[in-house]
Amino acid sequence: MTNRIKLNLQFIGIFFLIGAFQIAAQQPSPTPILYSEKTLEELKRLQTAALQSDYAYRQTAYLSNNIGARLTGSKQAERAVEYVADEMRKLGLAVRLQKLTVPHWVRGEEKGELVEFAGMAPGTTQKIVLTALGGSIATPADGLIGEIIVVGSFDELERLGRKNVEGKIVLFNNKFDRQMAEAGFGGAAYGQATAYRGGAAIAAARLGAIAALVRSAGGSQNRLAHTGAMRYDNNVTKIPAAAVSFEDAETIAYLAKMGAVKIKLLLTPQTLPDTTSYNVIADLRGSEKTDEIVIVSGHLDSWDLGTGALDDATGVAVSMQVPFLLNQLKIKPKRTIRVIAYMNEENGLVGGRTYAAEEDANISKHFAAIESDLGASHPLGFNFAGKPEALAFLAPLSNVLRSQGAGLSQIQSGVGADIGPLTQRGVPSFAPWFNQQTYFNYHHTAADTFDKVNPKELAEVGSVMAVLAYGLANLERDLPR
Amino acid sequence: MTNRIKLNLQFIGIFFLIGAFQIAAQQPSPTPILYSEKTLEELKRLQTAALQSDYAYRQTAYLSNNIGARLTGSKQAERAVEYVADEMRKLGLAVRLQKLTVPHWVRGEEKGELVEFAGMAPGTTQKIVLTALGGSIATPADGLIGEIIVVGSFDELERLGRKNVEGKIVLFNNKFDRQMAEAGFGGAAYGQATAYRGGAAIAAARLGAIAALVRSAGGSQNRLAHTGAMRYDNNVTKIPAAAVSFEDAETIAYLAKMGAVKIKLLLTPQTLPDTTSYNVIADLRGSEKTDEIVIVSGHLDSWDLGTGALDDATGVAVSMQVPFLLNQLKIKPKRTIRVIAYMNEENGLVGGRTYAAEEDANISKHFAAIESDLGASHPLGFNFAGKPEALAFLAPLSNVLRSQGAGLSQIQSGVGADIGPLTQRGVPSFAPWFNQQTYFNYHHTAADTFDKVNPKELAEVGSVMAVLAYGLANLERDLPR
Repeated sequence: MTNRIKLNLQFIGIFFLIGAFQIAAQQPSPTPILYSEKTLEELKRLQTAALQSDYAYRQTAYLSNNIGARLTGSKQAERAVEYVADEMRKLGLAVRLQKLTVPHWVRGEEKGELVEFAGMAPGTTQKIVLTALGGSIATPADGLIGEIIVVGSFDELERLGRKNVEGKIVLFNNKFDRQMAEAGFGGAAYGQATAYRGGAAIAAARLGAIAALVRSAGGSQNRLAHTGAMRYDNNVTKIPAAAVSFEDAETIAYLAKMGAVKIKLLLTPQTLPDTTSYNVIADLRGSEKTDEIVIVSGHLDSWDLGTGALDDATGVAVSMQVPFLLNQLKIKPKRTIRVIAYMNEENGLVGGRTYAAEEDANISKHFAAIESDLGASHPLGFNFAGKPEALAFLAPLSNVLRSQGAGLSQIQSGVGADIGPLTQRGVPSFAPWFNQQTYFNYHHTAADTFDKVNPKELAEVGSVMAVLAYGLANLERDLPR
Repeated sequence: MTNRIKLNLQFIGIFFLIGAFQIAAQQPSPTPILYSEKTLEELKRLQTAALQSDYAYRQTAYLSNNIGARLTGSKQAERAVEYVADEMRKLGLAVRLQKLTVPHWVRGEEKGELVEFAGMAPGTTQKIVLTALGGSIATPADGLIGEIIVVGSFDELERLGRKNVEGKIVLFNNKFDRQMAEAGFGGAAYGQATAYRGGAAIAAARLGAIAALVRSAGGSQNRLAHTGAMRYDNNVTKIPAAAVSFEDAETIAYLAKMGAVKIKLLLTPQTLPDTTSYNVIADLRGSEKTDEIVIVSGHLDSWDLGTGALDDATGVAVSMQVPFLLNQLKIKPKRTIRVIAYMNEENGLVGGRTYAAEEDANISKHFAAIESDLGASHPLGFNFAGKPEALAFLAPLSNVLRSQGAGLSQIQSGVGADIGPLTQRGVPSFAPWFNQQTYFNYHHTAADTFDKVNPKELAEVGSVMAVLAYGLANLERDLPR
């Protein structure tokens, strides 16, 4: 192992950088230092401390269990803002609350029951497990009844046309690709499914449907409905929209082949007037380049069915842990490390957008932004959104992370919703790169609860966050951007 | 392979009988024939037909999807009685409905929310997923509020004593042994957990508790509460009893370490007057020993949270499939094969008890009884309750089943709840022997739905039922009993 890490610009590319780094390290040359010897030694200590710390685990527990679900606009979300701000002040950070005007949607009662289908016992109904999609309007107060038309895709709906759809309820039975998820690419499977969750109400209403149902956009096969954001178009009639569980989608599809299936659907969500909430912004001031900022972040709001443990108490907690560990080790970053607990990632992205807009004039001082928002399973390394040339600067960090099995890196166009507006403005952006085999089995369901967090894996995520953050804060050169 | 299967009484024992059979087959002797050459050939054809048939799968689908949950006393249970009787009549069987006086418990509303706990956001509550245990009384109409005392065992509760328990709500946080289940012994893990489900209300009320909660007696870690029967003692005050999900048990236990945890509990189940229901009994008359009976059975009732697909539509369906396959192959059993779809296995066992009691004078004519009531995963062979000496008579059947990986057999004291009263009266009793790794993840929860049934594995179960039933019906000798 060489003591000084050199940059060899010949070996930059979009591939796993460990290899590139190793080759570079074998070719001593007078290129500038990337990380000082002291920084490299501190990174190893930081990594060790992170892998041994339970700080993030305890913070995740508190956010999930003591505060609970934190939907934007809720009292729990406000409590979480206060809590994180207090915890950051305890660490001696300079804390400010960034005021936001956020949407305030509240879930009400939700009930589905099949009231007509082949073979039913007279006088009975069959319960359907469903949940309103975030932002949905309500049904009439006593519910609505309609025949369900099952389609596999937007195209299939179009082919049916208005004559077959008008006055009915459309079920988009697009299947979440569990095989893709089980291969580790849960995010890709999720991406495919969300097109239906997002667009169902508009597509169905265009053809005169009275409500839209979607098969849950997740991998759960445990009778859990999967909520999430949906869209309306001001030029198209707004209709109520809900997700049915995997099982109920299967049952409805089965019954619909045998004859008419009618559902009674009751949803009573409300969209209340916009309200005030906050991003929590906490700075650990840099010792040399104080005005340059490395963001570590997650989002504080969650959906309301579970307790938002994986999505995204863990992301906030591993971000909070970065200054905690630096304090513990009594080491100071050269650039300022800014912890941000964003508000309203789930149903509006007001926090991320507002932060980037208000910092617009100061974007060049945002050296890098990191967000963790894909759970807390074993990290393989990190994803990077930015100039491919920058990856070579990061190879030494991958090398540190390699000992914990997190030595990979790859380029992605976007790495986190909240930091997306910064990415778009050219800020080099990062996220832990996770194995996503199980995340989407819990994500946005009632089962996103604290017990799903594996303390050892969370510590590994905490280490990736800390090593990335401190490494970037102490990088001796500017990242290409 | 010998053409005639001989009985060698030297090689009887409580071990896997394949070995014993092979040794016996190698030692020709003038002992009597167990199965005729024709029967053995028919068994092979029956097995092949069973492995190819989708009859049981379609019947499971109908019972689960078209009829739905079939709690005793419900209209769905009555519809299921009619349906199975009709299907058996279609096959030409002699059908009778055996009248039963059954309990009629109905689930009502159920709601749990923590109203006091450490760190809570003022003015909020935290939702607790729970479900009333079968037979529970209701809470007051507006619910009850109490502090939760968490104990791991009955002993721990006793040690706390009345002074710590009176006026409070006890949570029995006994953990379902998932490792045991994942090793294939789900039934054993379940047995350990049901002591708490059954006895919680009595133990808690004895010390003055106002309600009892149990951690779910199953392997689900998907925010599903697990219902099932519980007991009251007429000499102890009856208090409401519910199961909380794995996750909620974990959350409550975590919070209880930090301070008082209070829950508002609302349960509105009702125990209605006993009502009338039926066992469906359908006979395929034997061609030679018509008065001797081989029962194939499952139970028609189910819990009400899911649709009772695994528990136990599959058991009924594979039983119905036995005469279907015999008709299809145009082969006739020597003894009568009796399909029984029992009612009220889940919360009273009235069907099983009544059948055995009414047949008390005719028990000697019950040659054997088979029940399938542990799901429909890959069968390893069969379990047997009866005289160990009888196992040697069954080795040729194991040998047939061996080609599908179901060649094992073992002695158990009981093999099925409904046929238990027959077992106790000396009727040789059988059940498919299942791998139980996943069954208790769904059992008695909302996720016991049709999609959990693997058609290939169900066909394997159907084959075990058919081979056992036809083999026993045509066994040339009497089984030791």
